[in-house]
Order: sequence, then structure tokens, then C-alpha cells
Amino acid sequence: MGGEEKDIDDLPKNAANYTALTPLVFLQRAALVHPDRTSIIHGSNRYNWLQTYQRCRRLASALAKRSVTFGSTVAVIAPNVPAMYEAHFGVPMAGAVLNAVNIRLNAQTIAFLLGHSASAVIMVDQEYFSLAEEALKILAEKSKGNFRPPLLIVIADKTCDSKSLQHALSKGAMEYEKFLETGDPNFAWKPPQDEWQSIALGYTSGTTASPKGVVLHHRGAYLMALSNPVIWGMKEGAVYLWTLPMFHCNGWCFAWSLAAICGTSVCLRQVTAKAVYSAIANLGVTHFCAAPVVLNTIVNAPKEETILPLPRVVHVMTAGAAPPPSLLSAMSQRGFRVAHTYGLSETYGPSTICVWKPEWDLLPPENQARLNARQGVPYVALEGLDVVNTNNMMPVPADGTTVGEIVFRGNVVMKGYLKNPKANQEAFANGYFHSGDLAVKHPDGYIEIKDRSKDIIISGGENISSVEVENILYQHPAILEVSVVARPDERWGESPCAFVTLKGEAEKSDQQRLAEDIMNFSRSKMPAYWVPKSVVFGPLPKTATGKIQKHLLRAKAKEMGPVKKSRL
Amino acid sequence: MGGEEKDIDDLPKNAANYTALTPLVFLQRAALVHPDRTSIIHGSNRYNWLQTYQRCRRLASALAKRSVTFGSTVAVIAPNVPAMYEAHFGVPMAGAVLNAVNIRLNAQTIAFLLGHSASAVIMVDQEYFSLAEEALKILAEKSKGNFRPPLLIVIADKTCDSKSLQHALSKGAMEYEKFLETGDPNFAWKPPQDEWQSIALGYTSGTTASPKGVVLHHRGAYLMALSNPVIWGMKEGAVYLWTLPMFHCNGWCFAWSLAAICGTSVCLRQVTAKAVYSAIANLGVTHFCAAPVVLNTIVNAPKEETILPLPRVVHVMTAGAAPPPSLLSAMSQRGFRVAHTYGLSETYGPSTICVWKPEWDLLPPENQARLNARQGVPYVALEGLDVVNTNNMMPVPADGTTVGEIVFRGNVVMKGYLKNPKANQEAFANGYFHSGDLAVKHPDGYIEIKDRSKDIIISGGENISSVEVENILYQHPAILEVSVVARPDERWGESPCAFVTLKGEAEKSDQQRLAEDIMNFSRSKMPAYWVPKSVVFGPLPKTATGKIQKHLLRAKAKEMGPVKKSRL
Repeated sequence: MGGEEKDIDDLPKNAANYTALTPLVFLQRAALVHPDRTSIIHGSNRYNWLQTYQRCRRLASALAKRSVTFGSTVAVIAPNVPAMYEAHFGVPMAGAVLNAVNIRLNAQTIAFLLGHSASAVIMVDQEYFSLAEEALKILAEKSKGNFRPPLLIVIADKTCDSKSLQHALSKGAMEYEKFLETGDPNFAWKPPQDEWQSIALGYTSGTTASPKGVVLHHRGAYLMALSNPVIWGMKEGAVYLWTLPMFHCNGWCFAWSLAAICGTSVCLRQVTAKAVYSAIANLGVTHFCAAPVVLNTIVNAPKEETILPLPRVVHVMTAGAAPPPSLLSAMSQRGFRVAHTYGLSETYGPSTICVWKPEWDLLPPENQARLNARQGVPYVALEGLDVVNTNNMMPVPADGTTVGEIVFRGNVVMKGYLKNPKANQEAFANGYFHSGDLAVKHPDGYIEIKDRSKDIIISGGENISSVEVENILYQHPAILEVSVVARPDERWGESPCAFVTLKGEAEKSDQQRLAEDIMNFSRSKMPAYWVPKSVVFGPLPKTATGKIQKHLLRAKAKEMGPVKKSRL
Repeated sequence: MGGEEKDIDDLPKNAANYTALTPLVFLQRAALVHPDRTSIIHGSNRYNWLQTYQRCRRLASALAKRSVTFGSTVAVIAPNVPAMYEAHFGVPMAGAVLNAVNIRLNAQTIAFLLGHSASAVIMVDQEYFSLAEEALKILAEKSKGNFRPPLLIVIADKTCDSKSLQHALSKGAMEYEKFLETGDPNFAWKPPQDEWQSIALGYTSGTTASPKGVVLHHRGAYLMALSNPVIWGMKEGAVYLWTLPMFHCNGWCFAWSLAAICGTSVCLRQVTAKAVYSAIANLGVTHFCAAPVVLNTIVNAPKEETILPLPRVVHVMTAGAAPPPSLLSAMSQRGFRVAHTYGLSETYGPSTICVWKPEWDLLPPENQARLNARQGVPYVALEGLDVVNTNNMMPVPADGTTVGEIVFRGNVVMKGYLKNPKANQEAFANGYFHSGDLAVKHPDGYIEIKDRSKDIIISGGENISSVEVENILYQHPAILEVSVVARPDERWGESPCAFVTLKGEAEKSDQQRLAEDIMNFSRSKMPAYWVPKSVVFGPLPKTATGKIQKHLLRAKAKEMGPVKKSRL
């Protein structure tokens, strides 16, 4: 076309029509629109949006006064308490990056990531102060002369034993409320100049050993914050229960979503079935997110801890380990409406969702649960999702059987891993982010995870999906939790080994007989070569976010030595 | 901070983690997630999302084959029919810009804007073919040798008289369905390279005489498309009735929002109260947008055309001329839940909303309506909104009385006016987009329009808000519609002149007596100097979108000559 027509694209950006995207503006808006509405509930403590905005501005101001600015990182080691929510706004309002640390890591690992992230300030909940102290000691020793001690801020919580607070104060830590007082509640914070600026850093708690620092930016956090309510039909003023830790991928960006919809955050220091049911009964909870392990707890709670039927529909978003269909079915029988999502820290949390189809309403519960246990379709903000053959990056056919790797592309894929060019090169190979998860694509376009690449069991040359074996074992009435890994096998190379936690009543029964019962049960439900040749009872090792640490179980299975030929 | 800390921002964009934002991806997703769900209903015609996606790809492909590409503009002259919806995706999928033309403009104006936009293709509904033909004739005459006739495509509609279609075909226009057939349903469309790329061009229908071409980009359209459902609590699968013309600011971006939530579009060629109620009764409509003039029609519909009580809550979004509180109250009494928004073509449609506060539930209906008649607070995607003194750009105090100009800043402000540097300079002065609307800011932070700058009446040196006078007059039982403008006045310079349309029954009464009655009514309700000194009965001139054309009424009031001193 001629030159003149191009005029239509010849209008430059200016101060009036271009602003860097950032979820921080949602807080400002919430304080304007609903200053009096409850923003956060924590025990007997309540804040409204005006207070939350002022507290976040104080935090930003107090940090700025201590030279925390663009390029700085602030670590927070805390459970789901108000200060953790505030850090999601206050830290980036100072221009800095929030490093929310998994509180269930050991001192050694925390030392590594405080050093790796070069955190200039550490905000730590009083209960975790000793842990932080120990981590800093390790870090100081390792760094030798190079160690600049970070500013330590202790978050007091009156629900905790006062000793730990006293200890922290005696060590020179500044109390969080005192720290806020040094800040200006009208601090003139500025949005980032560039929406590509980093907003958060989170280390993969990892089913693997080496934590990687996932860096997220303002643009992605903004888009995810808007997508969550769109995809979940979450209306203005929803009441959200914090069962999912905010240190896990910034609570799947819900910290920012709640400001966008002026919803209420109900904090929870400790997630128990009783606490969840009580918050639903007394605080009007409408939504929560939880790993399958939490759903398990809710479903298997003793009757006296539950309130059923629920006083209203409660929406639950779950992700993480693929939830077994039997669990989804049990949740829905109790009146929870479960949205099954899938994602990674690298994709800002959930980035696919198993969108419920109206026609599924008519199916038997087992079929519903089976369909809903799939990982589904892209989130509204995810531009590219596919299952590919990584040899040639070609999509696998939508036949429900051909396995490939799940790959992502779009604006809700991380900036990259911090100071890890090699990991970045691998993760972003061929213009896609590689999830490491193996899946099939069904004829309806929904994807379904078959396994992590490293979790596949190869027995006699045949691939066995540990997830599929687990899903069947979950139907056994005595099994509370199960994880299946490869155990060396003299004849077959590898064979499935099931690690099992039993339900309350079953724990007392004869374990030898139970193991045989489980194997017999398996024989009637799955191909012979899938049947676990070993069943081990006991608690399962888990990450802070409730993911079963299969690498530890694999190590344990290896230690057990190979399954002997004679046993066949 | 040291150099090392900056690493946290040192991760570049790559193909996996950065994509230009565009609402076109929502259509692709809708076709994947809900291929079988109804996307569009038009009379007996229904499409599902897979079909809509394929038809849009065909359209893009057919356009691309005719060299329509980046930099091209495609004009569409049509009411709310499926082809208009499809153009919102198909045209930008070819890389081009959609120019949706107001069908109520005259041939002269359409000629101007077809020339100004240099539209290479014109898609025209059969009913408007003659209008387009006439416009092109005028354009050809004006352009003389320089005129390159655009490709003419006629959209057939079996609900129309076949003559106009025959005529169009005889003039060499290509039928739309035939045109689609030349396109590839699997066309490999590409998202824009740059999200700043233009997606749509819309001419201000204008209460003023000179149309300006408002250019919107993919980024803003994407953000607005996501904001609409967030702000309106619109869930996946909502059923949306197209009362608001899509040629009016792309239907406030709802064309794209509906793809984001996989909702259903119910087309409406002609908006009547009967048609609206019938769609609610028979097609499950949950949401619609409408100018106050349409709400007026709905509220004043004869009983036999209504279905009351409504079979479900129906959400209505209104904007445009500030709706009088009495109208909002009447709508809510009929069971419609009215969200009052405000915006301009330059802000992608609604960009403020009068968010409803739970505490208003307890107020008497008049108070509720008065609060809800305000323009409110920023939309979730609007970063900056204020009411300022334009002399120094300082915000006015939130006192509910100091008047200033409403200004906007952020990502849902237009790129600019096409080929109009002077207008852009004025509109974007001092880093804000200037709305030209005068408002106050209330102590609760909500803004309220007092008038367009040019609609203020200055009487004896005192400013009179024509909107406030109108709001009071609307309480008079005989008044259906009223518009108040300045009329020259020998003693006071200007004085208010009311142009009034009467309700059915009132039309037959003695107009002289009615005028006196209205003036008496006014005297009891407003300051003496606000009372209209002249009352004129008759239909009000309106723009295509139902805005009363005050400049025509002002001209008429001027023609009437000044109000004589003796009359006081």
C-alpha cells in the first residue's frame, strides 16, 4: 500500500497514552474505591484497603530511606501473614524485587539463596528468626570477608510465643511495625519506568536438588493478576483464604489479583482442615487455592472438624501435583467447586486450566473427575501452549496417546533464571519455555500430564507413567497418599515401587497383608507390568508446597537394592 | 547498590517470554476451548466459536489475497450483524485496521471519512449500500483524478428486502459470503509484531461538526477486553445482547471481551423495547450495554412489549450522556442492575465506573440513583484519572463543588487522532488526555460530570450546569427527554432554554400551559437563575449513538433570538 496509508501507525507514545503495566496500581485503586472495605483478616487483626495502602507506602518509604531501590532485593521469610501481603506491594513500590522465601527450607538452602539473590534486607517472621539467623551464619562463613550483613526486620505475631520475638530483638533485629513507623504513609511511590522491570524472585523449591531463582516482571504480574479473576469468575469483593503459601510463586499472583478486585484476604498461619472449615463458616470465604495435599486433608478430616453442607459454594483452585480423580470427585461431593489448573513458578503459577464443559454435568462423577483431572487449555493470558516432540518441536497429534513435552510461550513466562545462563539456554531452547512435563493432547484439545520426564518408569523397555499407577492406587480404600517411583529391577531394569501413607483406621492393620492386598487390587485394575513389585509404608517426604519429593523416594528405592529375579 | 544486584533486571526478552498483546488470541482460545458453544446468534442464524474462528480466518485470508495488510484500512458500514463482529477479528488478523463507520451519518460525512481513512476495502450491509454508493460518488468527485475505487463487499441479510442486495450486486459489489469463500479457513494469521500497532479507527460522531479519527492499538484493546469482565463480574459464557452499536468505539471493546470469556453475542439489527425484552425472555441474555436513550425506551415501553418481572438478573452498562437519576431508579425498579460508566471513544469506551457500594443498598431509591448517576472511579485498566484546574493542572479539592476538567492518562487512552497533529497537541497537552468534560470530585473520591465545557450556561456571570437543570426536569411527569442549552438573553447574557420531548399521553395537552407548568415546577426545585426561561417542545436531534446534539439546539436557540428584558 502507499505511504499515506501508513499514517495509521504513525502515532508515537506519549505521557498520556502509555504507562508501564504494573499490578501496584490495583492497590492504589482499591484504596480509592473501597477505603473502608476489609483488605486483610489475620486472627483478631483487620485492615481496610486505605490502611493497607498506607502501610505499603510506609514500607516502601522505610525501605527507600535505607537505600533499597531499583536493583535491590528484599527477602521475606514468613508464612501467610499481613506483612507478607504488604511486601508484595511495598517492596516493588520502592523499586525493588521481592524474594519470598519458602519457610520449610533448611538453613543451608536459605543461606544459598540469600547469598545468590544478594538480598539487602530480610524481613522474617518471629517464628522463623532462628532459621534466618542460622542461614546468615552459614552465609557469613562461606562469604568470608565479602559478607555485608543485611538489614534484619522481625515480623511480630501475637499468636506466637513471645520468646522468639525477644530473641530476635536481642539480636538487633528491628520490629516490623517500628520499621513501618519510620516510613511515610503518603510516600510518593512511582510505577516502574519499564514494565519489563523485575518484581519478584522465587526459588524453585524443586523436586530436584539445585534451587533456581525464577525472575518475574511487572508486566507478567499485571496480566496474571487480571487473568485470575477472569478465568475463575471471581467477582469484586470475593473473600479469599490463604491456604496456598504466598512464598509459592507469589500465591499464584493472587496477592495482586485481590487488589484488582478489591477482595478480602484471610490469612492462615497454619493450614488445617479445622481452620479451613472454620474460615468458611465464620469469615465468608468464597475462594481458596490449595495443593492436592491440602484437599486430601480437607476430604479426610474427621467429621467433627467439618461443617457440611457448606454454607455457600466455595471455589477451589488446585494445581501442583496432578490431583488423583478420586480426590476431585470427593471434593465435589462435599460441595466444593474445583478448578483444576496447572503451571509452574516459571509461568507465574497456573497457566493452564481444565475449563469445565456444561455437557460434563450429565456424566457420572468418576467420568467428571477423570476429565477434570486433565491439565486442560491455556489460561486467558497465555498466548502459546503446546505438547511437542522435542526432537523436532512438532506438536504431537491430538490422539490422547502420543506423549510429548509441554512447552509454553507468551507474556506469563518468566524473564529467566537469575545468574544462570546455562539453565536459561536449556529452558528457552527453540523459542519455547520447556516445562519438563510429559503429556498427551486429547482430541478435544485438552492436555494431560503423564509424568515429569524424570518420573517415567522404564520397565522391560516399556514406559510406565507413575502418575497413572498412582491414580489407580488412590482408589484403594486404605490409601491416603501414594507415590510411585522406579526401583532397580534385576530382570526388567526398573519396576514400580509404591510408597504409601495409610488412612487412620488402616494404620493399625497387618502391613504385610495390606501390601499383598494392594498388589492384588492393582493386578485387577492395571496391566501386569504396571503393578508395583514393592510397597513401602510410611510418611512421604514433601516440599514446602506439598509436592512429594520423588527424588528422595527414588534414592530410597535405590538403597533398597534391585528387585531380585527370583521374586517373579 | 553494587553492580551485581542489577543482575536481577538483566534478563532480556526472548521468543518464549514476550509476545505483543493482542485481543485476537482470545478468538483462537475460544475456538480451542469451546468449539461447539454458540458464539453469535442473529435471527435464525447461529455460529459456534469454531465456525466464527474459521470465518474470521477466511476473512483475513481473503483480504490478504487482495493486498490488504499492515497499514491498510478496511471500512465496515453495518449495524450489529455477524459480519461486523467478524470484522473485529478478521481485519486485524490480516494486519489491517478496522474502520467501523456510523451508519447514521450522511453520505457527505461518510465520503469525508472514507477519504480521510484511505479505506482500501468497504464492507457494507445491503441496507446501507446506496448510502455508501452516494458517499463514494461524492468522494470520487472531490478527489478527481486521484480516486482509486475501493473494493466493495456487500453483506447480505435475509431479514432485509432483497432489492437492495440485487442493486448492490448489479453495481459489481461482491457478496460477503462469496468473499469469505475465497479465503482459507486455516489461514496462518500472525499476531502483530508490535502491540502498539493500530487495530481500529473510529470517527467521533461528535456533538461537534468535524469528525476526528480516533486510532486505537492492540495493547489497549487487549487490556480493555480483559477489564470489562473483571469490572462487570461477567463470567465465562455470559450472553450479551448487542444494543450498543459495534461501530461505536468497537462496542466499548466488548467485541473482544466476549471472545475472552467465550460468551455469546446476540445481534440486533434494530433496537426496540420489544426486541430487547424478547431476547431476554428467549435467548438467555444476561448483559447488555446501552446509551441512556435506549434505557428510556425500555423504561417507557408499553406494558404489552415488556416481560416483567425479568426471568433473571440482567446487567446493564450505560454511559454516554449522563443518565438522569430518575431513569436509573426506574431501571432498577424493573430488576435491571445498572452499572453506570463513563468514557469516550478516545479512552476505548468506558474508563470510569460508578462502583456500587454495599452500604448504598440501605438508602432510599432516589439517593441510590443520585449516587449511581455519578461517573465514579477509574476502570481497572485505567492508570490515571483526575479532575484538574487546567490553568495549572492541579487536582481540584475533593469537595463536591469545585469544577475542573476530567483528564486521563494510561494504557487505555488512544494513540491519537489520525492525521491531525493540531488536535493531538491540544488533546495531549501537559501529559494528559483532556476530555473536555467538566466535573467535580466528591469527598468519597467519585467524580461527577457537571457539563461539557461548551455546554456550561453563563447567566449573569454565574455558571449553570445544564446537566443539573436537566436532571431536575427529568423528575417532571410529562417529560420523556430534555436538553437544556444557553439562549442569548438581553439582560443576563445567556439563560437556560429547555428543549423537551413529551411522553405519549402528555403530547396531546395544551403546550402553552405545560410550558408554564414546567417552569413552575422548576421554580420549586432549583435556584431562580437556573429556571429555563424558554421551553420548546419537539423531537431532539441526536447522533447515531443517541447523544443529543446540543450544538444544533444551541444554534436553534440562537436563531430564536435573545430573551427580551421585558420578559423578566
